[in-house]
Amino acid sequence: MPRYKITIEYDGADFCGWQKQETQISVQSVIEEAIKKFSGEEAEVFASGRTDSGVHALGQVAHFDLSKEFPQDKVREAINFHLRPKPVVVIDAEEVDENFHARFSAKKRYYVYRALERQPPPVIQRGRVWHVHKVLDIAAMKKAAKFLIGKHDFSSFRDSQCQAKSPEKTLDEIRIERVGDEVHFYFTATSFLHHMVRNIVGTLEMVGRGKWPPEEVKKILEAKDRKEAGQTAPAEGLYFLRVEY
Amino acid sequence: MPRYKITIEYDGADFCGWQKQETQISVQSVIEEAIKKFSGEEAEVFASGRTDSGVHALGQVAHFDLSKEFPQDKVREAINFHLRPKPVVVIDAEEVDENFHARFSAKKRYYVYRALERQPPPVIQRGRVWHVHKVLDIAAMKKAAKFLIGKHDFSSFRDSQCQAKSPEKTLDEIRIERVGDEVHFYFTATSFLHHMVRNIVGTLEMVGRGKWPPEEVKKILEAKDRKEAGQTAPAEGLYFLRVEY
Repeated sequence: MPRYKITIEYDGADFCGWQKQETQISVQSVIEEAIKKFSGEEAEVFASGRTDSGVHALGQVAHFDLSKEFPQDKVREAINFHLRPKPVVVIDAEEVDENFHARFSAKKRYYVYRALERQPPPVIQRGRVWHVHKVLDIAAMKKAAKFLIGKHDFSSFRDSQCQAKSPEKTLDEIRIERVGDEVHFYFTATSFLHHMVRNIVGTLEMVGRGKWPPEEVKKILEAKDRKEAGQTAPAEGLYFLRVEY
Repeated sequence: MPRYKITIEYDGADFCGWQKQETQISVQSVIEEAIKKFSGEEAEVFASGRTDSGVHALGQVAHFDLSKEFPQDKVREAINFHLRPKPVVVIDAEEVDENFHARFSAKKRYYVYRALERQPPPVIQRGRVWHVHKVLDIAAMKKAAKFLIGKHDFSSFRDSQCQAKSPEKTLDEIRIERVGDEVHFYFTATSFLHHMVRNIVGTLEMVGRGKWPPEEVKKILEAKDRKEAGQTAPAEGLYFLRVEY
């Protein structure tokens, strides 16, 4: 049975998240429907990671099996034809070895979080950024972020709904850059806890606006208590960027 | 009478363009309504240039007079309060000298045009780019663009509805850059003819996809005939960037 790996872009606003749900529209369900329309087959689509409601993707990766073989470009174009006009698109499709698994073969996952600093609300970037209204202290946030790099118990940044067995994760990088009137936070790790990126951003933002000193983040991490950290930054600023296999 | 200069961002998709019209919603009319709501005055708002239906602005500039004086921040915030949730926002407001005129004092106007090269349609950038489906030949387009720099009769790139007295304009710069899977065309001139930027982009795109050699653009310019040039590139890829006074 040929296995296909697809790279997907979507606007999270219109979906209840990646995962299929009974009453709401998920990214997974619209892709599975599109695959059925072009191939006639009921394939289950496995993603590299489930994104929450409202979270965008520029390079989500998923795989599925079909009994029939199709040219790669045909797979991409046919799914896209049936996805239209929904805000989901397959950027790339390729046939892969049957040992490839979008989730279990993933080595590194990359996210970016965008915050808009200016006072006036976004228009062109509406729904694409978290509007923080204020110029953030980048140097302080970089200092704070350093406490989080490496292997830690991230319980303080873990959602109560998180299903991971262990709260231990290894965070490889948090890169913080100012781009015009936005701050971009880049995250790299093998995997993340539920809401981990958004909870870290909500905490760094408190440092960025001068409410907490950078060292507070070290204390929060060590407390292993979600109540100590900042708010969960809104979903609309978060983008699943890419996966490394 | 105090005069206010405002810098405005808008999403062109929801408007018939800048200029007031009887039956459609224009950027000018929603701003004038917002000014009336906060000040009680019927001010006329003059823009540095009228944008067409669908054209976006990141830094349109306009001015208006009020009989009463308000703090600059109050002007910005009050207009924005009444504009919500329409996709228009005042980024900056300042009181200026009564000799300032958004249109007549403008020294340079800057536009950018964004084209998306990849085959799959845009999702996150939907309504923000022209989807050209193909990787364009940047070197050929740069060569072609050089023929247009300087003072010329731009009749070949002028819309039949253009109200300018003369078809002569001086184009200071066309800068072409690849940014990821997009091509950005930056334009600078004191002023432009109606549809001039979009007609030039539509022509350069023909060069970029190899349909015309760069030298064809020289012939098109010299023909002074709109029928010789390429199509008018779609409005959704065009952004009025800023004005220099």
